[in-house]
Amino acid sequence: MTVLILTCEEDVTADMVVVHLNASGVPVVRLDPADLPGGVALSGEYVHGAFRGHLQSAGRLVSISGLRSIWMRRPGPAATRAPEPSDWLTEESGQALYGMLRGSDARWMNHPDAARRARHKPWQLRVAQGCGLPVPATLITTFPQAAREFAERYPDLVVKPVSGAHPQDPPRAVPTSRVAPDTDFTAVAFGPTLLQRRVAKRADIRLTVVGERLLAARKATPEDADPDQVDVRFASPDVPWQATEVPPRVAAAVGAYMRRAELAYGAFDFAEDADGTWWFLECNQSGQFGFVEVETGQPISRTVAEWLAHGGPEPRSHVNGSSTTVC
Amino acid sequence: MTVLILTCEEDVTADMVVVHLNASGVPVVRLDPADLPGGVALSGEYVHGAFRGHLQSAGRLVSISGLRSIWMRRPGPAATRAPEPSDWLTEESGQALYGMLRGSDARWMNHPDAARRARHKPWQLRVAQGCGLPVPATLITTFPQAAREFAERYPDLVVKPVSGAHPQDPPRAVPTSRVAPDTDFTAVAFGPTLLQRRVAKRADIRLTVVGERLLAARKATPEDADPDQVDVRFASPDVPWQATEVPPRVAAAVGAYMRRAELAYGAFDFAEDADGTWWFLECNQSGQFGFVEVETGQPISRTVAEWLAHGGPEPRSHVNGSSTTVC
Repeated sequence: MTVLILTCEEDVTADMVVVHLNASGVPVVRLDPADLPGGVALSGEYVHGAFRGHLQSAGRLVSISGLRSIWMRRPGPAATRAPEPSDWLTEESGQALYGMLRGSDARWMNHPDAARRARHKPWQLRVAQGCGLPVPATLITTFPQAAREFAERYPDLVVKPVSGAHPQDPPRAVPTSRVAPDTDFTAVAFGPTLLQRRVAKRADIRLTVVGERLLAARKATPEDADPDQVDVRFASPDVPWQATEVPPRVAAAVGAYMRRAELAYGAFDFAEDADGTWWFLECNQSGQFGFVEVETGQPISRTVAEWLAHGGPEPRSHVNGSSTTVC
Repeated sequence: MTVLILTCEEDVTADMVVVHLNASGVPVVRLDPADLPGGVALSGEYVHGAFRGHLQSAGRLVSISGLRSIWMRRPGPAATRAPEPSDWLTEESGQALYGMLRGSDARWMNHPDAARRARHKPWQLRVAQGCGLPVPATLITTFPQAAREFAERYPDLVVKPVSGAHPQDPPRAVPTSRVAPDTDFTAVAFGPTLLQRRVAKRADIRLTVVGERLLAARKATPEDADPDQVDVRFASPDVPWQATEVPPRVAAAVGAYMRRAELAYGAFDFAEDADGTWWFLECNQSGQFGFVEVETGQPISRTVAEWLAHGGPEPRSHVNGSSTTVC
């Protein structure tokens, strides 16, 4: 049984996972849908009520029924590196590839439907609430008056995009920013705006979840930090990420979130306040983990490899670093 | 409790359903996400573990918790009729709208995730096989040699797109065509190709499924029909669609398909052969039904309205035309 990794060539995080899979002797096929057709080929036959399908990449042929798991890491859009790319070829190739893979019995990290749903931030906030995670008061609106009233109730606000990165080429991360006290909210009518009570944080938390394993890292906020600097992605690199324990209540709630979202992998961002409460900010179903592994030494790539190989950690493995298992 | 219909303004099929909902006194809000923000406004607040959300369209305000059902009919892409449209605004507006709606308890016809999955033809064929529907021998491949061998085993083939309509503007339907006996399959390497055994059909069947109700229509193939004319969408309009009975085995299999696909609405296309066997061709989760209703008199729009209003047909209603209930 083979692990299929769908990602682009220059993905060094996938390289880290492949090293562990190779060391365990687990067969791996790694390919980028962008190379279909050409470097990647496929064939599937529906005859007499049965299906037999194959993928070929770099001279290796793998049966679709022989896939144990599929890692949707950073796949390129189908057929974009074909000799004569077109929207039509991308559509046909994507439907052919994912249409066949969706019919397989392989486990997904993450399934494309779960991944797509999980990207909706308004949905994330609702699920987090439902699982008992503390969510900072949030408003998403196109009504200027609703924004004004919210700003009166919660005078210390941040504004952030409803969706992810700006779709320019290359995509641009839109920072979370503090809202000035005298802000005029008239422009809210021209685009949905997400306003959220600013958490006076003493640390950022990145909680990486792989199956039922939780690996948390903490980055303390310097005492002299600029309170206008709210987005950890743009914070000072002087303070390192360090492994930390997950409070049991958070662990249970995050486990519930993962089950409800049907995710096998998720990178949760929390803001830790002065009371030690972890406030849910978001869960990125495709969040990077290489930088956390490098800084903390937590075995995230090995845990991903174990999930892909067996659906969970090795029975006898002893994982260093902080982790909690949620049942 | 309100029915929310997401569709474009010029959708006359939606008009037919709205007439029935209005006659039953069921509150309806109809809007096109293309009009967000501007003609359509939204607001959602996450405070103290709870969510309160609203949509506004044409001066009407509706609570998201007050939605009984959501009909994803033909919604335009979000914000494309905004005063200053952009990819970014479309992304932000779509995430805001669907992110909030996805968190509601409303029933969907069809849920966006189920709709997206259901569009994959390779997946459809696998599900149809699994539910016991006869599927004509089919090959989807980028291997010229596989295509040649398939054509030797099944000399009478058609070729059709793996995906749906060609993404030009306006989108173009790509017809299913017969494959000539001397075809050179070398070009298969340049794009996934779907080859399927041609069914020598005596009729086309359109089976419209609304919840658990099945409404079948049949269009006989004229005796003197050109055997190269295989695509019903381009067939002679001289022969009308007529209501017909659904064989019990087909009804049971289609019911299983709908449940496995998590669809509330589906338009199945079958080819009926000389033995009376219905061969599964595809299930279009957003297939048109207006033309069938007009030609057969089957109460499809009323059945859709009843599902949106109550989750099924009116308890005491007597629906004319052919229909079968699948448990």
